[in-house]
Amino acid sequence: MFDKNLIDLSVMSTEQIDKIIRKAKKIMQSPADYRHACDGKILATLFYEPSTRTQMSFQTAMLKLGGRTIGFDNPMNSSVSKGESLKDTITIVGEYADIIAIRHPVEGTAAAASLYAGVPVINCGDGGHLHPTQTLADIITLSCEKGRLDNLRVGVCGDLLNGRTVHSLIKTLAKYPNNSFVLISTKELSVPLYVIDILEKNGCKYEISHSLADAITDLDVLYMTRIQRERFASEEDYQAQKNVFVLDKEKLDKAREDMIILHPLPRVNEITVDIDDDPRALYFKQAQYGMYGRMALILLLLQDDEFFVENRPFVVSNHHCNNPKCITQQEPYLPNLSYEKLGMVMCGYCDKRID
Amino acid sequence: MFDKNLIDLSVMSTEQIDKIIRKAKKIMQSPADYRHACDGKILATLFYEPSTRTQMSFQTAMLKLGGRTIGFDNPMNSSVSKGESLKDTITIVGEYADIIAIRHPVEGTAAAASLYAGVPVINCGDGGHLHPTQTLADIITLSCEKGRLDNLRVGVCGDLLNGRTVHSLIKTLAKYPNNSFVLISTKELSVPLYVIDILEKNGCKYEISHSLADAITDLDVLYMTRIQRERFASEEDYQAQKNVFVLDKEKLDKAREDMIILHPLPRVNEITVDIDDDPRALYFKQAQYGMYGRMALILLLLQDDEFFVENRPFVVSNHHCNNPKCITQQEPYLPNLSYEKLGMVMCGYCDKRID
Amino acid sequence: MFDKNLIDLSVMSTEQIDKIIRKAKKIMQSPADYRHACDGKILATLFYEPSTRTQMSFQTAMLKLGGRTIGFDNPMNSSVSKGESLKDTITIVGEYADIIAIRHPVEGTAAAASLYAGVPVINCGDGGHLHPTQTLADIITLSCEKGRLDNLRVGVCGDLLNGRTVHSLIKTLAKYPNNSFVLISTKELSVPLYVIDILEKNGCKYEISHSLADAITDLDVLYMTRIQRERFASEEDYQAQKNVFVLDKEKLDKAREDMIILHPLPRVNEITVDIDDDPRALYFKQAQYGMYGRMALILLLLQDDEFFVENRPFVVSNHHCNNPKCITQQEPYLPNLSYEKLGMVMCGYCDKRID
Repeated sequence: MFDKNLIDLSVMSTEQIDKIIRKAKKIMQSPADYRHACDGKILATLFYEPSTRTQMSFQTAMLKLGGRTIGFDNPMNSSVSKGESLKDTITIVGEYADIIAIRHPVEGTAAAASLYAGVPVINCGDGGHLHPTQTLADIITLSCEKGRLDNLRVGVCGDLLNGRTVHSLIKTLAKYPNNSFVLISTKELSVPLYVIDILEKNGCKYEISHSLADAITDLDVLYMTRIQRERFASEEDYQAQKNVFVLDKEKLDKAREDMIILHPLPRVNEITVDIDDDPRALYFKQAQYGMYGRMALILLLLQDDEFFVENRPFVVSNHHCNNPKCITQQEPYLPNLSYEKLGMVMCGYCDKRID
Repeated sequence: MFDKNLIDLSVMSTEQIDKIIRKAKKIMQSPADYRHACDGKILATLFYEPSTRTQMSFQTAMLKLGGRTIGFDNPMNSSVSKGESLKDTITIVGEYADIIAIRHPVEGTAAAASLYAGVPVINCGDGGHLHPTQTLADIITLSCEKGRLDNLRVGVCGDLLNGRTVHSLIKTLAKYPNNSFVLISTKELSVPLYVIDILEKNGCKYEISHSLADAITDLDVLYMTRIQRERFASEEDYQAQKNVFVLDKEKLDKAREDMIILHPLPRVNEITVDIDDDPRALYFKQAQYGMYGRMALILLLLQDDEFFVENRPFVVSNHHCNNPKCITQQEPYLPNLSYEKLGMVMCGYCDKRID
Repeated sequence: MFDKNLIDLSVMSTEQIDKIIRKAKKIMQSPADYRHACDGKILATLFYEPSTRTQMSFQTAMLKLGGRTIGFDNPMNSSVSKGESLKDTITIVGEYADIIAIRHPVEGTAAAASLYAGVPVINCGDGGHLHPTQTLADIITLSCEKGRLDNLRVGVCGDLLNGRTVHSLIKTLAKYPNNSFVLISTKELSVPLYVIDILEKNGCKYEISHSLADAITDLDVLYMTRIQRERFASEEDYQAQKNVFVLDKEKLDKAREDMIILHPLPRVNEITVDIDDDPRALYFKQAQYGMYGRMALILLLLQDDEFFVENRPFVVSNHHCNNPKCITQQEPYLPNLSYEKLGMVMCGYCDKRID
């Protein structure tokens, strides 16, 4: 597998992550120096499901580097609607473009695409699985606004069960020393056990809280996410709790002056609009940091021969992944890639257990 | 409110309008001088409803200035479909782009967007309310082809009740001395009374006509618009009148040699195709003038510190607008902006009377 | 009719075709020399039906020449949905762009567009009629990979009745000396008689085969196309024959070492995936050649005053084309263009017999 891809941030070392952050900061300091860095290069944004903000962020990043973009934002307008395989589409686009940013509703698609592209592939979201450039945006924001990625007390609030951005952020911050977490959610929406395992293996302190108002008082960072109404166990639960996890002025008044508020966006109503002008509210600025992170990533993947992404030692196995949401279910020609973890065999695309 | 927007042409002084026209003419004379005027700048075209021609006109304008574009042409492909507020979308896009061109089916949306963008916003059409760059195209055409914006006898024909481009053109030309108007329509589709008020307040002569064939004989300009079949009071009315407001060779034969024909496009059948090659038919050239007008506007908004758009003195009031088509009905966090006019309180977004 | 269009490759002389091929090869050899060849120029890609690959190929071609692109990929997002005529849309786009690439589901649309564009028009597919830049991709591949366009023994396999790319390839290769063809298909999907006529008129040898396994043994080129299940006469026929026209490892083992495999793509299952890594499988590289062909074509149409496309001697006739799939059925203002061929009167748009 080509080693110039960003499929999964969790396989990267902190040195690699820090390299991206340093590059992003250099670009922020003097963007004019990078206005022609990618002259003549083409980014393809292949969005098999719409995500305007992520797509515009990548397009802007490439344009600000002097490059250009091609792509689509709608599967129905693509050759997919004629029954073309992912392999064929990616192989052809790899002939046209110098780098590919792909979003797809099916888990493992970016990894599968990287087998055939011949150029770097960036995962812009593969179903509920991974969205590494969102996490990149999060940690660049932390690095710029808090000045560090360690010794942080981070509250994560909302749907901790299904929120892939939360899992990815926790996994990444757990690599840095002395971060601690307050996990704020309903019981039904607690973090999955495997995330707790990661915290414990890395020696991270963590607390569980069912009240944002209580937890907010002593945080460096509050990371908010959306809870969808249908996630509550019952209508009564929803009515009883709907406001408990909404950040409003009253709760924010209890927070420290230097706490910062992040959110992966889109927001619905989990942060009230009257907070937007508070200097601690950084969720819009976070999107701008994300754009600089994408600029750094594109530059490093295209130009830095020493920047590569470590990969797990995949093997071709006999076992086919059974996860019905895995790309291997749709694209039968894909090799059965797997790797071992704690004695288990895991799918090389969707990271679910195979055997 | 940021003063580098074009939301409504009618609040601009004739000096400001003339400045745009002069700039457009300079660009037409030597387009090569402007090929790098917006190098490194990004225009976002946010089209919440499709309008290929307007969007392509803006994209072409920006590309010919050396800039680049991002954007979308379909609400279903945007984050809107995830329930994101206009404020959040615009705030983020304002972080990516240097200038925003927005089209939206709801009245007042461009004004609302300008509150949050942080960069200049251009209104490309907000429902049935305003479409100022169309009027800009119209008056640049008049200035270039007739050599003046005053002392014109202008026939406007078609659906004068619902045609926002006609209202806007009349309001703008009424600011210049000694223009007169022939209002050619069915009784049912006459101009609204408020337009008559503007004409009278500005001392403009006007006549009302129900026959294009009669009115056409003594005009400097004929501005045609589409009448939709469903606008007629009954099928009998439609059958009786459908041809009365169609410009064909026979009627055109009665017009002066130096009369020019404009149309905002798209045309359906209100101008017969056999007229297209007549030298007086300028509706296609008008679209090209519009593109130069958009180039001038982008340049002035981005680069001319002394170019700004006067605004009405808005106040934040207690009254919420009741117009069901106003953006304030959809986006509840918007402040209640209003202004006074002739003793009435008007909505700062949709310009409808509030109290 | 403007003579700087590519509507139909079959009216071009071999000298003109060779000129395009030579230019494409020069670009391949030193692409950097052409990075600013189209600076400041705009290509409009008007795709009235989606075809991601073709559209991305044209966009990439223009971007690699330093030009820029505007356009749409969806009829529902275009002014077409407001009832605008092709003439009006094309006239306006011709004011914005320097060259137009158009794809449309209706036959003859590119020819019709070329009447009004005022700038060069390239046919990117007009219904089942023509797709000349695909054929251009095919013959550039042959020229580069086989070193010649004559003395080739070419197998064409699949749906030879409906495959416009096959017909166009045969017509083009028939102009070069001493090419011979093996026509491999079911009886029901044999080439139309008019193609046989062309072969015979040009003195080309040809054979008919119903077995890919038999025919493959002595070919310079195998051109595969898709057979759709519904093309078979009955379900029994399909079950009996479905594998006969699939290229797999077993059949490929019988082919010569220097045979090359082409396919216009998208592929469904007529070539098994395990062949993709065989050095003879050139269908992905063919797409890259196509991109270079499009670069050459854009360059020649925009910059080479001596490059023009010969046209048939059209006359305006009294006969209206009756082909229900012809653009003249939808756009009533189009002049009745026709030409004579073998004593018959043919439609100037869709090339079907009129009288």
